[in-house]
Amino acid sequence: MSEQHPATGAEDTSAPVGASPDAAVEPVDAAPRRGMSRRAVLGTVGAAAGVAAVGAGGFAAGRATADPLQRHAYDFFGTHQSGIVTPQQDRLHFAAFDLTTDSRARVISLLRKWTEAAATLMTGSELGSGAAGGAYAAPPDDTGEALGLPASGLTITFGFGPGLFDDRFGLADRRPAQLIDLPKFSGDTLDERYVGGDLCIQACADDPQVAVHAIRNLSRIAFGDAAIRWTQLGFGRTSSTTRAQDTPRNFMGFKDGTANLRAEDVDLVDEHVWASADDGEEWMAGGSYLVARRIRILAENWDRTSLQQQESDVGRTKGSGAPLSGGSEFTEPDFTVTGRDGEPLIRPDSHVALAHPSANGGARMLRRGYNFTDGADDLGRLDAGLFFLAYVRDPATQFVPIQNALSSHDVMTIEYLRTTGSALFAIPPGVPAGATLGSDGGAFVGEALFA
Amino acid sequence: MSEQHPATGAEDTSAPVGASPDAAVEPVDAAPRRGMSRRAVLGTVGAAAGVAAVGAGGFAAGRATADPLQRHAYDFFGTHQSGIVTPQQDRLHFAAFDLTTDSRARVISLLRKWTEAAATLMTGSELGSGAAGGAYAAPPDDTGEALGLPASGLTITFGFGPGLFDDRFGLADRRPAQLIDLPKFSGDTLDERYVGGDLCIQACADDPQVAVHAIRNLSRIAFGDAAIRWTQLGFGRTSSTTRAQDTPRNFMGFKDGTANLRAEDVDLVDEHVWASADDGEEWMAGGSYLVARRIRILAENWDRTSLQQQESDVGRTKGSGAPLSGGSEFTEPDFTVTGRDGEPLIRPDSHVALAHPSANGGARMLRRGYNFTDGADDLGRLDAGLFFLAYVRDPATQFVPIQNALSSHDVMTIEYLRTTGSALFAIPPGVPAGATLGSDGGAFVGEALFA
Repeated sequence: MSEQHPATGAEDTSAPVGASPDAAVEPVDAAPRRGMSRRAVLGTVGAAAGVAAVGAGGFAAGRATADPLQRHAYDFFGTHQSGIVTPQQDRLHFAAFDLTTDSRARVISLLRKWTEAAATLMTGSELGSGAAGGAYAAPPDDTGEALGLPASGLTITFGFGPGLFDDRFGLADRRPAQLIDLPKFSGDTLDERYVGGDLCIQACADDPQVAVHAIRNLSRIAFGDAAIRWTQLGFGRTSSTTRAQDTPRNFMGFKDGTANLRAEDVDLVDEHVWASADDGEEWMAGGSYLVARRIRILAENWDRTSLQQQESDVGRTKGSGAPLSGGSEFTEPDFTVTGRDGEPLIRPDSHVALAHPSANGGARMLRRGYNFTDGADDLGRLDAGLFFLAYVRDPATQFVPIQNALSSHDVMTIEYLRTTGSALFAIPPGVPAGATLGSDGGAFVGEALFA
Repeated sequence: MSEQHPATGAEDTSAPVGASPDAAVEPVDAAPRRGMSRRAVLGTVGAAAGVAAVGAGGFAAGRATADPLQRHAYDFFGTHQSGIVTPQQDRLHFAAFDLTTDSRARVISLLRKWTEAAATLMTGSELGSGAAGGAYAAPPDDTGEALGLPASGLTITFGFGPGLFDDRFGLADRRPAQLIDLPKFSGDTLDERYVGGDLCIQACADDPQVAVHAIRNLSRIAFGDAAIRWTQLGFGRTSSTTRAQDTPRNFMGFKDGTANLRAEDVDLVDEHVWASADDGEEWMAGGSYLVARRIRILAENWDRTSLQQQESDVGRTKGSGAPLSGGSEFTEPDFTVTGRDGEPLIRPDSHVALAHPSANGGARMLRRGYNFTDGADDLGRLDAGLFFLAYVRDPATQFVPIQNALSSHDVMTIEYLRTTGSALFAIPPGVPAGATLGSDGGAFVGEALFA
């Protein structure tokens, strides 16, 4: 007598042979159980026809509010991984992992399983037979808290930290030169709880429950091979990756990311974001590098400074975000314009001046950061700030010099910011459209590294 | 020569007499600065006519997605405070405060300022002259990160903890009998960082940035009088307070709050939620009591149990949420129905059976909880779970017995839940419509306590 799920009648192959069925359980709601997919639960509004699959490398869509039912799903497959130039979603759950296995084969197996799961989750479907389907006597394949929720624009982006290239996995000679060990910057007050990681997953979605569900289930899949080292929840965007999105505000109350690279700047993104085979490691072609910095804002101090001082430190007005040299938000700052006293209207040591490409050899970044708050400290101050995420082609030339300038000369950075977490990850290219996924030899993110 | 804001021309009365104007600052964006209100920034879509003011005691609206632009604003004024029977918003920021002053007059002053600020914030406006208005040489009145965001259904609910009734403020004899010291329950593993508080603020909104902005600005107003003791961010609802809302899922993957009291159950809410003058303290009439419990879910353990065991422990199916006695989600559980083996289909020690009003003298609660995740522990497990919030008329009869039963007999509670935070607050009634607010003698939340 085989054990069957009382509602679906599916044979439970995981049950021990000869096990008795639990007579106390009767089928009560057969209808929803078979093939329970998150989209199916949505019924008429969530049918496949209603799900807009948008190329993650494209720049359609825009604000979440343009799609209030959040049915939009991005395509997992592509030259690049999703979640980089994808229109930036409103919510983030980020996790860095330590590999707990020393086996190269197990790392490959994990990446195969993660890849397959990510592709499934991004469609808005549950994993495997779902949280309420499958074998009744076995743990469900999916933890279930996203059951009934649409895809919500979920993207899942995988990264490799320096630890993957240590002596454990035979990959030391494949480490890209761009995956440097970040230097300690002036003003860094790093908390080891938020530093480094062998692997990372960036899950972005317009519903935080969908992003958290993704990280939770991927960490469950990693059990025995990798464990979460640290995580960060982000509640609001601090940048935009397409021009269709408004410019959000950071915890200092200023618009952030006005001068960000956008998906529409295809040539600039090619130049500043995407790694090429010419950069050294062919397996990284089409990938990028992700700088993650957890920056606490000393909000109480900032809030006590005058509006004049705040705007002078930033180099932009607080209301519209216009540069102090005049114009409106998207007017290019003019560092030559002077005021009545002959001094530049934008201070040379303002944040805008120091971070501007003209002061940094033309370096640009694709920022993708989030506001965070993680409780209060012993003095009753909110532990809150900016979880800085930026995608660059070469951190050594596009991030390190800018951060050195800011941490040495930028009053805003020196006086009001404390970097408490820091990590750098190589972001491999995407899995090509048409690839077959699966734990038995399927394609996976980063496959070329292991070839 | 007085100092004027370069854009608004407003005289800065806070500047020292004779101070020199900063010649380096020129007016650059005069238009948006004067009277910058969050709604004004919205332009055509956010004009006053577009803002739906809904009585917080009512039960209109429903899902946030019904109003994708999140312009809806609830009325601050009413018999009851907002944020109790208000349709439950999707996001939460909760803060407990310690009073750092010993002065009764300063507590009253703080409550006046908080009341006035809350009423302003709930309309979607900035505080005072805003983040980018007012005197240029003074710190802005508002921290600014919600500038440009609509009201987003924000509610702000104030509460009084036992500490307000100690010997500092002459209120010891006004402490309601219902504001008990919660007993230690079996299974409590309290972390002092998440326990108690003299005051609390529950900020709920459909945009987390709006809720966080409210807590941040109210804590700023409290500087010198009260400091944050602990906070909790909630990313997803685990209950519904109106029938128009769908039933959300908790971190165990099950629908939560199916049997919750709803705003539509006016008679039941009167009976089980709202305090009356007959309950002992007249100043609490129209108020309620808020039980706050931070409950960590041992998700890894739960996720390893079979679907059958999970459903048996809960007493409901995971897919539809129907009771195991049959029917659909909202079918009343029938504890008398037995299976083939003669045993009840709903185990007597299941969560549903132990928490059911029939097992608890008819006790009901209005739950208003949220999912949370606060990083990972040293073992790489997510610190995640349920931030349980429930409004009741009498915690001693409506919460303590149920929690005692669950913590002693409920397998789900005993095996998979750890309560790490706990607090109880008296929630005073609302400020009546038509009242005049203001720091100079205005009406305030809890005013009758100090009369």
